[in-house]
Amino acid sequence: MNATGWRALVTGGLGFIGSNLARRLSEAGADVTVVDSCVAGCGANPYNLSGVPVRVLRHDIGQPQNFRDTIENADVIFNLAGEVSHLDSMLRPERDLELNAATQLRFLDACTRWRRGVRIVYASTRQVYGVPQYLPVDERHPINPVDFNGVHKYAATQYHQMLTRTGDLDAIVLRLTNVFGPRMSLLAKNQGFLGVFTRKVLLGETLKVFGDGSQLRDPLYIDDCVEAFVKAAEIPKGTDRTFNIGAPEHLDLGQIAVAVSRIAGVPEPGCIPFPPDLKAIDIGSYFTDYRLFANATGWRPRVTFEDGFRRTVDFFRRNREHYLPVCS
Amino acid sequence: MNATGWRALVTGGLGFIGSNLARRLSEAGADVTVVDSCVAGCGANPYNLSGVPVRVLRHDIGQPQNFRDTIENADVIFNLAGEVSHLDSMLRPERDLELNAATQLRFLDACTRWRRGVRIVYASTRQVYGVPQYLPVDERHPINPVDFNGVHKYAATQYHQMLTRTGDLDAIVLRLTNVFGPRMSLLAKNQGFLGVFTRKVLLGETLKVFGDGSQLRDPLYIDDCVEAFVKAAEIPKGTDRTFNIGAPEHLDLGQIAVAVSRIAGVPEPGCIPFPPDLKAIDIGSYFTDYRLFANATGWRPRVTFEDGFRRTVDFFRRNREHYLPVCS
Repeated sequence: MNATGWRALVTGGLGFIGSNLARRLSEAGADVTVVDSCVAGCGANPYNLSGVPVRVLRHDIGQPQNFRDTIENADVIFNLAGEVSHLDSMLRPERDLELNAATQLRFLDACTRWRRGVRIVYASTRQVYGVPQYLPVDERHPINPVDFNGVHKYAATQYHQMLTRTGDLDAIVLRLTNVFGPRMSLLAKNQGFLGVFTRKVLLGETLKVFGDGSQLRDPLYIDDCVEAFVKAAEIPKGTDRTFNIGAPEHLDLGQIAVAVSRIAGVPEPGCIPFPPDLKAIDIGSYFTDYRLFANATGWRPRVTFEDGFRRTVDFFRRNREHYLPVCS
Repeated sequence: MNATGWRALVTGGLGFIGSNLARRLSEAGADVTVVDSCVAGCGANPYNLSGVPVRVLRHDIGQPQNFRDTIENADVIFNLAGEVSHLDSMLRPERDLELNAATQLRFLDACTRWRRGVRIVYASTRQVYGVPQYLPVDERHPINPVDFNGVHKYAATQYHQMLTRTGDLDAIVLRLTNVFGPRMSLLAKNQGFLGVFTRKVLLGETLKVFGDGSQLRDPLYIDDCVEAFVKAAEIPKGTDRTFNIGAPEHLDLGQIAVAVSRIAGVPEPGCIPFPPDLKAIDIGSYFTDYRLFANATGWRPRVTFEDGFRRTVDFFRRNREHYLPVCS
């Protein structure tokens, strides 16, 4: 990786993936500006970039005039701003439309005017595929989102793709599987089971798995995810544009709960019935065919789930007061 | 067709397709309520339903509380409200997002609460497929919209499909090719070439075809389109949900211009270079594989282009003052 001298803009850069990416870019010598609106519930945590030499601007990307010079000067834009909760999108679909589609529309429109043709790496999600029709899921899998979050993330994906076809942008779309690691949000109830599992074991609680726990996942450690974003920024023009990003280990939720409990030193997990509101938007088993991206870039996930989760627990134990309420 | 006694709600019912559908349903004995916000440029024309015994409510479907009882009492909802201009969507993408996605989101949310499980037939567009990768285009063709209108119509399509999977609605999606006939908008510059062609020949002008005029289309006459909506309302639950609707004649734009000019009695058309803003969102040739719908419903287009366009010119000559400015 050679990001020395890059002028990089990271939207949503106080969140989990954004902040880890900003740190990595900064360590590699990039000139990093983070824009984050700190919308409640979207995962921003100022501590994530504490002590890191990056500019942090508290702006809504839907009001790009507030950071026009940053857009004009960017060599590359890593676009990670958005709402990530699937369940919240079903309860407040208009909020999700605003945060994931309308603000992206305004931001991208500004990019086409002030920095036409700029390379953008957009963080999309496996959720756009919905319930897998086959496994592993490759990029040709039909789009069938099971919730408003998936619909709106896909609309934003199409903004990037369409504006790239017209030559107004030069976007790469990464559809991410479950990502975990240091700096992920532990407080949000509805942002993925790995944050919930981690919070519970840090609090010494016994985990409960919904249903029979047989749904497969391929959790990706954050450092490998960040590396994918950096490699995506360097993909030559004119090749494939949309890539699935996942990990080689396929673990079921029961196995994951057992491993997490063992690593954290809490009792073995139990099972409970699937809550109906979550069952309605559950996608069953999912794991990723990420060969297209691996072949295009040489990227490979390197951290095992076991190793990654040890590092995760270690990080949160050392930084607990910044991620869990003091009263816990 | 046996729509006797149906309580039908038609959104966008003062527009081209909506008004023809409302007339047909009313003639068949249905109890029809039309909701139309008459947004400028979206094609509403009160004359379209002049003298027809249907209720017309001037409401925005994004404010469904204004016609809650109509939703609660509907046996079937024909959902045709929306902005149809592709070019305008590129100039004012946020307006298109509001009209095609946000208002649909509010309307469908109300339908799920006040009339859960109701049959909805949604008017989508071939534009979601973008530049065809193969011809004829079937329902498995990848989604690659070339403009914001296509992105947002597809988001609204996904709302319908997703809420049907969750059991909250019972939606059928029709992806329409170019539709033409009586009551289409002639004034809008950016709502399809057939309205533009018709306006020009009514004014005695010589047609001009962009480029070499070799792009194929399968124009569908309005009566056949309306019949497809009625048949879609009767499709049993649990079958396919999304259907392409087109016509069997594949004519290139040059052939269409020649036929239109001959029927209307104006001089032979000429060619001009493709305007750049339209070229950027042009999709090349398109024609439809509509066998899935034909097999599911027995529907067949019955009116030839020649016959349909004769009826169209005849209608507009008899009703010219309601569709063309007096000053023309």
